[in-house]
Amino acid sequence: MLRQHASDQGAWQNALQQIQPDGIAWIREEALDPLLVSEYRDALHALGMPVRLESQLIGGEGLKAWDVLPTLLDMFESSGLSRRSLVITTGGGALSDAVGFAASVWKRGMPVAHIPTTTLAAVDAAWGGKTGMNWGEVKNQVGTFHPPTFVHVDSRWMRTLSPREFQAGLAEAAKHAMIDAHVNLSPTPSYADLVQGAGSSVDAWNTWLEQSAAVKMRVVAQDPQEQGLRSVLNLGHTLGHALESACLSTSTPLLHGEAVAMGLAFALWEAEHPALCEEQLTPDAAQEAATFRAWLNHQIPVSRTDWPAAGVLWAFMMQDKKNVGNEVRDVAWRGTGRLVWPASWKKAAFEATWHDFLRCWNEPSPPSDP
Amino acid sequence: MLRQHASDQGAWQNALQQIQPDGIAWIREEALDPLLVSEYRDALHALGMPVRLESQLIGGEGLKAWDVLPTLLDMFESSGLSRRSLVITTGGGALSDAVGFAASVWKRGMPVAHIPTTTLAAVDAAWGGKTGMNWGEVKNQVGTFHPPTFVHVDSRWMRTLSPREFQAGLAEAAKHAMIDAHVNLSPTPSYADLVQGAGSSVDAWNTWLEQSAAVKMRVVAQDPQEQGLRSVLNLGHTLGHALESACLSTSTPLLHGEAVAMGLAFALWEAEHPALCEEQLTPDAAQEAATFRAWLNHQIPVSRTDWPAAGVLWAFMMQDKKNVGNEVRDVAWRGTGRLVWPASWKKAAFEATWHDFLRCWNEPSPPSDP
Repeated sequence: MLRQHASDQGAWQNALQQIQPDGIAWIREEALDPLLVSEYRDALHALGMPVRLESQLIGGEGLKAWDVLPTLLDMFESSGLSRRSLVITTGGGALSDAVGFAASVWKRGMPVAHIPTTTLAAVDAAWGGKTGMNWGEVKNQVGTFHPPTFVHVDSRWMRTLSPREFQAGLAEAAKHAMIDAHVNLSPTPSYADLVQGAGSSVDAWNTWLEQSAAVKMRVVAQDPQEQGLRSVLNLGHTLGHALESACLSTSTPLLHGEAVAMGLAFALWEAEHPALCEEQLTPDAAQEAATFRAWLNHQIPVSRTDWPAAGVLWAFMMQDKKNVGNEVRDVAWRGTGRLVWPASWKKAAFEATWHDFLRCWNEPSPPSDP
Repeated sequence: MLRQHASDQGAWQNALQQIQPDGIAWIREEALDPLLVSEYRDALHALGMPVRLESQLIGGEGLKAWDVLPTLLDMFESSGLSRRSLVITTGGGALSDAVGFAASVWKRGMPVAHIPTTTLAAVDAAWGGKTGMNWGEVKNQVGTFHPPTFVHVDSRWMRTLSPREFQAGLAEAAKHAMIDAHVNLSPTPSYADLVQGAGSSVDAWNTWLEQSAAVKMRVVAQDPQEQGLRSVLNLGHTLGHALESACLSTSTPLLHGEAVAMGLAFALWEAEHPALCEEQLTPDAAQEAATFRAWLNHQIPVSRTDWPAAGVLWAFMMQDKKNVGNEVRDVAWRGTGRLVWPASWKKAAFEATWHDFLRCWNEPSPPSDP
């Protein structure tokens, strides 16, 4: 996979010229900065390659419904896309998941490239080649492994995100920091700096987003099909996905990043109150846990009163793709880079831990020791 | 991929024990010999692995309609299949194509194994991992590369095929003989021998079917994702698929094997009346062409008066997945193992060749030289 950096002007155009597709389909979210869209369109047309399809979709989880697929496949058909055509997505993770899936099965697979426009997609979803559609209420039950030909990170797209969406995407970056000590928790410039638009903050954000994504790609390179190691990237996601699914049909659905932030907070709680495996935290790791918890509380505040019951969450967790037989497999955190996989939840232990965790959640200063 | 031979008793059970799935889904065609179904069911249950799903479907091209997928995915979901479960198909190529596709995308891919029950599936469709669904009227527009964990050939399943279906499947074997001189054109025992049931004819058919499939697998091993060489396996299929698609909605649809037999006869005609590339047949190759044509005429008689017009076929050929840009790519045959790829049709040349070919088709003894 090619890595692309926005500060390297023309890099993605060079990538396109290497690929030499016989046609390009550019599928992007509707709500993007029109000036940036124009800039990219001009660059695309300057390459002289046939742009066979340019389409706008309403982003978000709704795109991952099974019923959306015929729309995408019909678009591919009527544009005459071949398996040598390239599909470029410009949007968030739901868009790259859904369009990536459709591209991966059209004519048994067309190449895709992603230009992520959300923090979440830039550090996670756009990278690594997992595509996914939801089946019923369960997320990503249908999908493929279909690595993008390239990912091009340009944080200027993220200026038009709402602060809530911008912040939620940082949950995956927190996860990467919990997995790999080589990445910094917080980028130097702030969201406000990025929005106000100094070029140096754009570059700083690009670098930070890509360094975070690099944690993921180091793991994926060792295990592209999730036979083992790649599962550590699911830290916080077993509960996170269940929370997201369970809240999907409520009047206040969670953003994916918010659900993951809760999943990570829960993993930190479990580390301090071992239930998944017996290993205890070292004093250093307990200190790290406190730092991560404080960061999550500050950066991605999630508050609601109607948390799903443990039994509801358990039913969703039982659907997790990583499970073997009747166990719910999860990743236990015991310090930065110190992950226990596979660890298995028993129903009673999960329900008790969720109950205790929730009781202390959102308290101003949760105890760092039981 | 494991190769399994019916005469090696217990081989497929051994394969299952190696795989150790956490559950088995057995999906088979409705119209199979009930005694054989019982024999296989007993063998499956004797292994003591949980059989989570046993389902019967009506085989044939209808299974490859997009609308069938939700039924398959719902079955997977309600049976609680995980990505460590194994899906076993027992049926023809349409069944393994459709169920293979569904399995390849459920939880991003469950392993599959195929027990082909038609000659066509035994020499071709069950092998090599191409899955496919039809999109609109166009065959296999949606699919994946998802190699089966094993293929188990047992020609006893083929005793209940109609003679027409049995014979049509041999078209792919003729193709393999046209590609690779290591395979014999005709098996020694006849269809009647197999039906009458001597054990030695079962073994002889198994061996012959597997030797034919081995031609395919030698090519696939060198190019699993059809980047180049694998395209030679499309000999006869560019026209064959177009014929099959064009006749699908008529009152007399062609079987896939019949369409391929026509495609091969057309390839032999083109070899004798070069239109795809300039190379001429050697006298030896012309003799081979005559032998293959006589065999096809005798083994897979196809006669109809309402052949599709050249323009209709061309429109379908333009949809072929192997095309690049606006060219229709095809494989030209110039002798056993002597294939020219890629060769490209121009519309006028194709239409003239189809017209001339059709004029001579079904004549008792078409000229071997113009």
